[in-house]
Amino acid sequence: MEPVKIGLLGLGTVGSGTVNVLSRNAGEIARRAGRGIQICWAATRDLYKDRSCKIENIRLTTNPREVVINPQVEVVVELMGGVDLAYHLVLEAITQGKHVVTANKALIALHGNEIFAAAQKAGVMVAFEAAVGGGIPIIKALREGLAGNRIEWVAGIVNGTNNFILTEMQDKGCSFAEALLDAQQRGYAEANPAFDIEGIDAAHKMTILASIAFGIPLQFEQVYTEGICTITREDIDYADQLGYRIKHMGIARRGEIGIEVRVHPTLIPYRRLIANVDGVMNGIVVKGDAVGSTLYYGPGAGSEPTASAVIADLIEVVRALTSDPENRVPHLAFQPDALVEIPILSMEEAKTAYYLRMQAIDRPGVLAEITYILGEQGISIEAVLQKEPAFGESYVPIIMLTQPVLERNMNQAICRIEALESIEGKIVRIRLETLD
Amino acid sequence: MEPVKIGLLGLGTVGSGTVNVLSRNAGEIARRAGRGIQICWAATRDLYKDRSCKIENIRLTTNPREVVINPQVEVVVELMGGVDLAYHLVLEAITQGKHVVTANKALIALHGNEIFAAAQKAGVMVAFEAAVGGGIPIIKALREGLAGNRIEWVAGIVNGTNNFILTEMQDKGCSFAEALLDAQQRGYAEANPAFDIEGIDAAHKMTILASIAFGIPLQFEQVYTEGICTITREDIDYADQLGYRIKHMGIARRGEIGIEVRVHPTLIPYRRLIANVDGVMNGIVVKGDAVGSTLYYGPGAGSEPTASAVIADLIEVVRALTSDPENRVPHLAFQPDALVEIPILSMEEAKTAYYLRMQAIDRPGVLAEITYILGEQGISIEAVLQKEPAFGESYVPIIMLTQPVLERNMNQAICRIEALESIEGKIVRIRLETLD
Repeated sequence: MEPVKIGLLGLGTVGSGTVNVLSRNAGEIARRAGRGIQICWAATRDLYKDRSCKIENIRLTTNPREVVINPQVEVVVELMGGVDLAYHLVLEAITQGKHVVTANKALIALHGNEIFAAAQKAGVMVAFEAAVGGGIPIIKALREGLAGNRIEWVAGIVNGTNNFILTEMQDKGCSFAEALLDAQQRGYAEANPAFDIEGIDAAHKMTILASIAFGIPLQFEQVYTEGICTITREDIDYADQLGYRIKHMGIARRGEIGIEVRVHPTLIPYRRLIANVDGVMNGIVVKGDAVGSTLYYGPGAGSEPTASAVIADLIEVVRALTSDPENRVPHLAFQPDALVEIPILSMEEAKTAYYLRMQAIDRPGVLAEITYILGEQGISIEAVLQKEPAFGESYVPIIMLTQPVLERNMNQAICRIEALESIEGKIVRIRLETLD
Repeated sequence: MEPVKIGLLGLGTVGSGTVNVLSRNAGEIARRAGRGIQICWAATRDLYKDRSCKIENIRLTTNPREVVINPQVEVVVELMGGVDLAYHLVLEAITQGKHVVTANKALIALHGNEIFAAAQKAGVMVAFEAAVGGGIPIIKALREGLAGNRIEWVAGIVNGTNNFILTEMQDKGCSFAEALLDAQQRGYAEANPAFDIEGIDAAHKMTILASIAFGIPLQFEQVYTEGICTITREDIDYADQLGYRIKHMGIARRGEIGIEVRVHPTLIPYRRLIANVDGVMNGIVVKGDAVGSTLYYGPGAGSEPTASAVIADLIEVVRALTSDPENRVPHLAFQPDALVEIPILSMEEAKTAYYLRMQAIDRPGVLAEITYILGEQGISIEAVLQKEPAFGESYVPIIMLTQPVLERNMNQAICRIEALESIEGKIVRIRLETLD
């Protein structure tokens, strides 16, 4: 049988990796898919650039639309990134009756609902395994492997840049700024790292995971997002003393009155396997009512790891080319007409435990004032760590871990404690998850 | 649309779990599959037994054949265990044109080749996610999620009973016999535990993983199998001092001249995530050429975790009911006509590093004698730990870690060292994997 003809948009890091792996493993891939898979056309910004992949058998163009409308292209692989142009090209490909494979999390998180509706109408597949967790087949695990479960929560380290920075701070004792610089020098962080360190990339990924976990439409704008810029060495050390690691996590949880989807730094007990997911690696824990907790770990980014996910999608699409749409796995795990509008809660309605750090005057009775306020707000204390004042200082750091509580109550408690005359400055608060 | 009608063989632990989860999550499962899934008939040994699942809407019989030949049954779920009867029933179901879901690793490991050939001929699916790793969707990850890779190796803790025993020995300092008794009292080990502790169960699972990793036929009889009965507290302690954990692992590795598939106790560096997979949990690391290392972790057994995998398979089968066979994922990951006969190497040809422990006379020159023999056999030493003799003892324990070497060479070296007049008794050897 003829190989399936692929049109590629983007020949950057992931695009080159995809070309290389498809060519290197061509034999095994054909043995799996039952047909060869051949990239015949590719759109790239610069035709004459030196590349880390062989492009002899690929026709290049600078006009991505040319690839999308080429009648010989059966599957379009979108690896150009960005949102607006990618959106128009993907929609055009779908309208042309072509299947799409994409690694673009921003595109799916922001425009997935329209894209999947268009794909359903056109009877084509849009595959996006590479959009979350890089080479880890987490979309497949959640959407198919755990399909028998009512998913209770998903908690993931889904941004390798942030995980690298926090791991460096933990292991080498450096500051956030030093670790960020190191990440940039190694190519793990962009020159403008805002997208990663402010948590937006992780929020895109959690938007997707929440949707396929709970059968709800994609709702990026409802995701609470906090980055890692405010994390200090001090907090990492105190957390360590209390038996915790600080990780930048995304959490999607089904609660009694709605769904929480939030991205923020999080203390987790160091005995949990996911607390030991270090460096640029990603790890995602999924809790299902039947299976309990399962964890998926691997490289969350990079040329060939991401290509691994892109090619898995390609093999799946190639196998299902002649299948009826109803035989395929629905894009968002649930049948399109079976998605439900469970509300995503505001952060005030979310319930988590907390790590609090404050500077208090070193005199008797201060702890009583603080615990009185917490008690009034219905907040139970799990642990207290009170340090000696540094030489010449009149303030002492007090560190507290609390039981889970509504964020609204915690906000009120923090306001009241900060207003105490015995407390200096702002209270540092970091959320804490036991992942039970 | 009418629900799909299922016939169940076996209402034991996993069967009851499957009935319970299917009923509890019926709504979500139908939202995913696009159709309801209903167990209508079930075969069980005792019709009047008290059960942990509701059977009001299920017609019971003591004759499994009745379920298999019932023309209304569309999918047969085999959860009865055992090999011979299960084999005949599954083949009969296939001949009747019914799809099969099974959790039976022994059945697949021993008879999978014939079963899949019959299924291909009949155009039906045989799904077996629950056969390896319980609730962990490892078959799906390896067969589909990593399909773009040339798999280099798979290394897994795939038997929860053995992992529980070794974890107890490590954490509580108890002997193998004590830990086994504890496992039996908690229901983790059978009254006759041979199947688990001798490694046969793990060998069944590794047979399956090796086949779908490398695209080779199932070859249980070629798997080298060693259990955990010879592991002592002493070795666990020495391993700990050297920075290692002892785990019972299955390893399937593609080498230069063939494939190694082996099951045995293994030292692994404690910094590896999988070294921290403790208790009854399972964990599997897959190394692919593109993705690098990925890890899958979760409960490897139990009623509802295993049911989770059975139901995921059911949903997949239900979705693909009307699909053409060529649109489906091949049973052994590769197209049936594309399996290849790469030889599975004998253990003599396998290459691993080693932990050696021996009792030597406490006098100068003994270490030189030993290292001379190792050197002659081309074995490099990675670390040596020499202890003081216990009070009144004239022998001292010497512990060595070696670099990877052919097992044949190690066998010869051990023979020669054991023959030394300065060495007392047998040398303890445990294989060591760095999982790089």
